[in-house]
Amino acid sequence: MTDAGRDIRHLARMQRKKAVIDARIAQAQDEHGLLLVHTGNGKGKSSAAFGMLARTLGHGLKAGVVQFIKGAATTGEEVFFRRFPDLVSYHVMGEGFTWETQDRQRDIAKAREAWAVARELLGREDIALVLLDELNIALKHGYLTLDDVLADIQARPRRQHVIVTGRGALPGLLDAADTVTDMQLIKHAFQAGVKAQAGIEF
Amino acid sequence: MTDAGRDIRHLARMQRKKAVIDARIAQAQDEHGLLLVHTGNGKGKSSAAFGMLARTLGHGLKAGVVQFIKGAATTGEEVFFRRFPDLVSYHVMGEGFTWETQDRQRDIAKAREAWAVARELLGREDIALVLLDELNIALKHGYLTLDDVLADIQARPRRQHVIVTGRGALPGLLDAADTVTDMQLIKHAFQAGVKAQAGIEF
Repeated sequence: MTDAGRDIRHLARMQRKKAVIDARIAQAQDEHGLLLVHTGNGKGKSSAAFGMLARTLGHGLKAGVVQFIKGAATTGEEVFFRRFPDLVSYHVMGEGFTWETQDRQRDIAKAREAWAVARELLGREDIALVLLDELNIALKHGYLTLDDVLADIQARPRRQHVIVTGRGALPGLLDAADTVTDMQLIKHAFQAGVKAQAGIEF
Repeated sequence: MTDAGRDIRHLARMQRKKAVIDARIAQAQDEHGLLLVHTGNGKGKSSAAFGMLARTLGHGLKAGVVQFIKGAATTGEEVFFRRFPDLVSYHVMGEGFTWETQDRQRDIAKAREAWAVARELLGREDIALVLLDELNIALKHGYLTLDDVLADIQARPRRQHVIVTGRGALPGLLDAADTVTDMQLIKHAFQAGVKAQAGIEF
């Protein structure tokens, strides 16, 4: 095909695509707070949530963060978003990964303390986005019960968004969610012997 | 099993897990700039890249952003990260999605202008992370050639990280990448008639 032919075919294809997309946008008029879940074994679950946090701040809205499991080392996102204490209520509640603590009763107690903080954020009308980072790990280990967690999430203000991250999201959480992304590992530099690096992994 | 039994089994399992993970961390000693690709039809490809940008800034490092396709509307991430002009070199080069422009020659010219800006960022030793947002769309449509793009990416400073986002990443890009995440759509609120909302979609 000639280059001019490709241009014309492109125009026709894009006109059809625009018609379909515009119709779908016109239909999608409902607005309410979403429950988003980022799960899977790939990289990007927490990062994507922090990217949405940046978006939220860009729109002049407030956000809350509870990190359930991480926290042994200070992360770049924590240092960065703590610079905006008027806009971001930031809470690191975990004490490292569960294979570092190795103490189930202590992990349970910590998870419950963290949930008390999350519940308070989920009750605030002035907070547009609540990020529950690595909550899936606490649920998967049974440190918190899904029924309790969902009851508090469902009782939140109507326009508030919630993002839950972590591997192994429970099926009941996926059922309750509006948007779910499964972040699949295709390959990871760590597998090739590359160390975790600032800005990328933490 | 009793609760005490579960605690003991948990301890043993976490001790084994810690041994495996610590051994893998000890082996992973190589450090160099990574090429990361976020692809797939799910939500979170760009957000995850912007989350890593926040991490990078948290570590006191500089970053560059080129948005190849988006740009018809100002996004929350753009407003937010433009607040740090000393740390973030932010460039929105596209003129909306290809189904909005419908003009292939113009899209090609815009993609080439955008790549000239990207190449300049890829040449800077002081920039720790270069985010090439929606570059995959420009590559998939043939607006840029993969060979040219990879040559510039591979010639970058040794410690610089690059993140490429967008659906339909070309196989040659995946081969060249260190880390690839396929963000799979499990469900999306838009499918249920919910409008795109500030902080979440833009």
